[in-house]
Amino acid sequence: MKIKVIVPLLTSKYNSAVQEELLPYIAPDVSITVVNLASGSSSIESRYDEIYSTPEIVNKIVESEEEGYDGVFVSCVSDPGISVAREIVDIPIVGGFEPAALSAGIISKRWGIITISQSCARLIRDLATLAGIHQQLACICSIDQPINELHKMPGQLEDVLLTKVKKMIGEEQVTAIVLGCTGMMGMAKYLSNEMKAVGIPIQVIDPTAVALGYLQMMIRAGLTHSRLEYPKLTLTKIND
Amino acid sequence: MKIKVIVPLLTSKYNSAVQEELLPYIAPDVSITVVNLASGSSSIESRYDEIYSTPEIVNKIVESEEEGYDGVFVSCVSDPGISVAREIVDIPIVGGFEPAALSAGIISKRWGIITISQSCARLIRDLATLAGIHQQLACICSIDQPINELHKMPGQLEDVLLTKVKKMIGEEQVTAIVLGCTGMMGMAKYLSNEMKAVGIPIQVIDPTAVALGYLQMMIRAGLTHSRLEYPKLTLTKIND
Amino acid sequence: MKIKVIVPLLTSKYNSAVQEELLPYIAPDVSITVVNLASGSSSIESRYDEIYSTPEIVNKIVESEEEGYDGVFVSCVSDPGISVAREIVDIPIVGGFEPAALSAGIISKRWGIITISQSCARLIRDLATLAGIHQQLACICSIDQPINELHKMPGQLEDVLLTKVKKMIGEEQVTAIVLGCTGMMGMAKYLSNEMKAVGIPIQVIDPTAVALGYLQMMIRAGLTHSRLEYPKLTLTKIND
Amino acid sequence: MKIKVIVPLLTSKYNSAVQEELLPYIAPDVSITVVNLASGSSSIESRYDEIYSTPEIVNKIVESEEEGYDGVFVSCVSDPGISVAREIVDIPIVGGFEPAALSAGIISKRWGIITISQSCARLIRDLATLAGIHQQLACICSIDQPINELHKMPGQLEDVLLTKVKKMIGEEQVTAIVLGCTGMMGMAKYLSNEMKAVGIPIQVIDPTAVALGYLQMMIRAGLTHSRLEYPKLTLTKIND
Amino acid sequence: MKIKVIVPLLTSKYNSAVQEELLPYIAPDVSITVVNLASGSSSIESRYDEIYSTPEIVNKIVESEEEGYDGVFVSCVSDPGISVAREIVDIPIVGGFEPAALSAGIISKRWGIITISQSCARLIRDLATLAGIHQQLACICSIDQPINELHKMPGQLEDVLLTKVKKMIGEEQVTAIVLGCTGMMGMAKYLSNEMKAVGIPIQVIDPTAVALGYLQMMIRAGLTHSRLEYPKLTLTKIND
Amino acid sequence: MKIKVIVPLLTSKYNSAVQEELLPYIAPDVSITVVNLASGSSSIESRYDEIYSTPEIVNKIVESEEEGYDGVFVSCVSDPGISVAREIVDIPIVGGFEPAALSAGIISKRWGIITISQSCARLIRDLATLAGIHQQLACICSIDQPINELHKMPGQLEDVLLTKVKKMIGEEQVTAIVLGCTGMMGMAKYLSNEMKAVGIPIQVIDPTAVALGYLQMMIRAGLTHSRLEYPKLTLTKIND
Repeated sequence: MKIKVIVPLLTSKYNSAVQEELLPYIAPDVSITVVNLASGSSSIESRYDEIYSTPEIVNKIVESEEEGYDGVFVSCVSDPGISVAREIVDIPIVGGFEPAALSAGIISKRWGIITISQSCARLIRDLATLAGIHQQLACICSIDQPINELHKMPGQLEDVLLTKVKKMIGEEQVTAIVLGCTGMMGMAKYLSNEMKAVGIPIQVIDPTAVALGYLQMMIRAGLTHSRLEYPKLTLTKIND
Repeated sequence: MKIKVIVPLLTSKYNSAVQEELLPYIAPDVSITVVNLASGSSSIESRYDEIYSTPEIVNKIVESEEEGYDGVFVSCVSDPGISVAREIVDIPIVGGFEPAALSAGIISKRWGIITISQSCARLIRDLATLAGIHQQLACICSIDQPINELHKMPGQLEDVLLTKVKKMIGEEQVTAIVLGCTGMMGMAKYLSNEMKAVGIPIQVIDPTAVALGYLQMMIRAGLTHSRLEYPKLTLTKIND
Repeated sequence: MKIKVIVPLLTSKYNSAVQEELLPYIAPDVSITVVNLASGSSSIESRYDEIYSTPEIVNKIVESEEEGYDGVFVSCVSDPGISVAREIVDIPIVGGFEPAALSAGIISKRWGIITISQSCARLIRDLATLAGIHQQLACICSIDQPINELHKMPGQLEDVLLTKVKKMIGEEQVTAIVLGCTGMMGMAKYLSNEMKAVGIPIQVIDPTAVALGYLQMMIRAGLTHSRLEYPKLTLTKIND
Repeated sequence: MKIKVIVPLLTSKYNSAVQEELLPYIAPDVSITVVNLASGSSSIESRYDEIYSTPEIVNKIVESEEEGYDGVFVSCVSDPGISVAREIVDIPIVGGFEPAALSAGIISKRWGIITISQSCARLIRDLATLAGIHQQLACICSIDQPINELHKMPGQLEDVLLTKVKKMIGEEQVTAIVLGCTGMMGMAKYLSNEMKAVGIPIQVIDPTAVALGYLQMMIRAGLTHSRLEYPKLTLTKIND
Repeated sequence: MKIKVIVPLLTSKYNSAVQEELLPYIAPDVSITVVNLASGSSSIESRYDEIYSTPEIVNKIVESEEEGYDGVFVSCVSDPGISVAREIVDIPIVGGFEPAALSAGIISKRWGIITISQSCARLIRDLATLAGIHQQLACICSIDQPINELHKMPGQLEDVLLTKVKKMIGEEQVTAIVLGCTGMMGMAKYLSNEMKAVGIPIQVIDPTAVALGYLQMMIRAGLTHSRLEYPKLTLTKIND
Repeated sequence: MKIKVIVPLLTSKYNSAVQEELLPYIAPDVSITVVNLASGSSSIESRYDEIYSTPEIVNKIVESEEEGYDGVFVSCVSDPGISVAREIVDIPIVGGFEPAALSAGIISKRWGIITISQSCARLIRDLATLAGIHQQLACICSIDQPINELHKMPGQLEDVLLTKVKKMIGEEQVTAIVLGCTGMMGMAKYLSNEMKAVGIPIQVIDPTAVALGYLQMMIRAGLTHSRLEYPKLTLTKIND
């Protein structure tokens, strides 16, 4: 089974770290290839970014299908390009939001999301509304940090997230938390360990782990997006 | 990775067929063991059946954790014993309903369920209400056949289901269908192939395939039900 | 009119107190008989307890119908065994949750529930979800006290509840409160009097009073659960 | 216990029939007095009618409290004057809609209402929206007959209602039906008997029977509308 | 284009101020006439007031249609008489609530309403429920001031509202605010300017400005309330 | 007042017809300028089209603000580019969907949309979900005609739409209809006249008429999208 992972940045400098982070989440018969974008926004943190990166993301997805990949994971919690690409390709495609949001309901009936900025919180709120999960989603919180600064603040990021997690449990009574950014590498384990140490055994969901598991499940089950749901784009239109 | 599959019947006669059916859905590093119940209802088709089989299902789940299994799949779409067992064990447990229902939202925004009887339809409706997915679930239909008769009507079962699927697409505009009984082996592939042949490329979701994929994802991601959501039962109560 | 009241404890020691408490809520032509369980959990405070007491509760309900009772009240706010028994008997049966939750909407458009533990709060939340009353239910709070300790803390229980009630009015703007445990005898009157004395005329709903009134209404109106809603269990299955 | 029943018509000619119809629904210690309106619309079948009858209905309710009645039932499914009067009097008041609609949820999880005209259907739909019961209310149907003609068409009314009931069960899968007009005397029993005779055991809910039972329950339980929900009108305003 | 503005007070003393306030919101080809009530409540701050002023409001609306007006605005956020009058007249009629509440969704996805009393908050909550906008309406707050006192507290009113607005932004995360009383003249501009000055650029929606714009839009587009939605009252009933 | 109208086609050949169609909907002090796109999809009928036309639509909106326009209407019911542009410009911007969908609630409590294809129906369904209006939106129907063919089938288009409208009234009980494509010029008037002639006085809402009225209202009221809702894009990101 071959999976393409699209990290929607204009740089490849995090790819080996990403590749390593993904390994525990794939089965022995699965290979992954990590790629980036040649054009678009430097990161996806607003509706503007999303629109400007989507054409290149769609190109990469179409290319993956042509190359024989069995599925694609776009490593971003705003699910950029996912619904557009489903009008064109037949292989299963997931972003970071849908699998994490839909899986959270098995683990918890009242959960929250932590993301990096108010802009991202708006994108995620709209995705949550479209997914129809408002019965369970208690809150979407922001740590107000640009994505490209996350790797520069390792110790600080831990602190900022931990403070927010405690606040969400105390004030919003969440019983699980979804990380609202695929750039928060290693944080799910850190946060759940820290909280367990203080006697509050909360589950923290890493969207990357869940999305990869979801994609493998879809591929093994032979499932993909419904063509009745995402009508196929006519070729004339594509070449228009 | 070791997964226990509990088929909540009082007989082991379908176990080898079940075992064979499950193989495509597990990764090379996963082993599965199929077991049955020593007591309870002969099958689960009503609230009464569910109540009378749950204690034995919970015993089997507790036993699985003690034996070192990494997760348990209870092969029944009414998710019997799942929420009770989550009060006791720490390993991830899934039934047939939750994973299929939550996954359907990635494939389709308007889908339906086919089940075997009005009683089962009521159980499933309540699970759907608890899962909060009413925005997407268009209908729950019944073919009105007892579970223990399904294997006696191979050719007929195909016909009955196909007729129902066509009706759900035509009248309810569903774009995907979830099979509402884990006993409908092989039917997901049959139905999607037949519909594709008549130019209607609908996705048919087999709850078994999805549940096993979900469980593998949870185990690889280190996730389980939140202990804040399912408060741990005190030992005195268990020995009460 | 003859009503059976099932107090789902393994002891009869509270029965005379319960009997006396119920008298103001029944009409002159109604007689009540209070019974307990011979097996099951010592009290119902978790999903585990609920499952282990349900078979005996169902037996008691079936027995009541055979004895000619006109209706049954299971005195517990988790409504244990209610939907199962409706598959079997024809006489009206109510627990403590449904009548109180559905009646609250006449008295208030924004109300809350106080219960004894996080486990009970989870059971009640699921019942509220199934009843579809989330538009009005503002919060479910817990005083974190085991049921079997309630009678040991008379003065304290009053204080603990009163503090919680004030918090629910102040922070959640509820205009009525439903007691989420049938073991909080006498508390509805105490709490509403205390609040009235401080100028906050809130209604406090005792689930027992409402359930008994509901049941009498159903019996006089000739109503019972719909057989189309709760399909009758076939006899072979019961004797299975 | 003394209950006032306000039949919001300008004539008293149906009062003795109403009185007789109500008797089975009250306990031996309850007395009822049936009164009518001195002014307002001849019947309540539109928003216009409702507005023009409400002042006199409110007068009658205030008068009832002054006379020492324990509760008031306004015999009309559009609940005219109920929420206004709750700003003024302290005794419990119910109309025909709220008790029937809230009780239906115990009997059925999918039910419908039959009313007499499109105008009434609009009034009832708004009441249903305010009561927050849309999860269970499958449909509101109309037989398109003016209220003052109902008594002129005894045989016909039965036929018209029976045809509609069969259609609601067949096409909307309702498992219970609420009569949406208090003028359909005797019809609940007739319809449930006829349906039972053809093997479809549906429950038909008479709003009068339920409202009277509800009111007796409220009086015995010492409950009334929350003063926090319905702020008390200041006297200066009333004498304004 | 001729628009009638009904200010539902028993005095004309604010009419010239109202007239002046409205001028910026109408196009050059629109003329407005401001009128008051000859009978009814002195102001509309409760369900009681609403009921007692509605007949006269309806008279004024019917009169406006007879006089050839193209549309009517009833200047009150409880939309008194609006749905009743729609059963009778054909010209478009709006109150203060519907246009503001429906327009807020273009400006914000999470907004709140400030009104003058708990009674008004109840009326508005019911209108919001009927309008089906609960997904976006975060809160309804009250400043607890009678309508007839608003003009006596110019400096104070500003302060009270500003404090409330800051609280709604801070605690409820609203991104826009709807003024819940048409008597808060000039406050929308004041509040948005003050908030902008402290770096929080919130939109404050004046219901009068929006209602007048809405009405002009309806008249230019040739739209009015659907006669299928508001069945026409028969003449015999009106002359009844 | 100056309004820019962006018709998102690559041709200007319909502009004079559009200009003429818009005139009745603007006040005497309003001037409109109609422009098209220099790049993007030839029309917007899928998610793919939407993504590929959005950058150019955003450019045109930014340009309009720089040129001193008071507001912009993007003449397309999929609201392309609207939420992205709100992150950048301060003037009010509307598409065809939001104003029509939010206005429909004043005219009708149960309405439907007719659009041109299944792809468009999907786009509109997602917008409806985001707008939170599902309580009132009964159905989204498609006539299955490409946008660029609409002008070639004048007589036919009328017939196809009329048949669909009758079906929506009969089967879905809608009381108003929103045209789901701004290319259906003149159809609102035609359809409402035809239906009135057969005694069914339904309102048909032209999204263009409503959007222009809405925009004029926003400009006169000094309203625009909330900056708290649509956080301002930082300049570095735009020049990124």
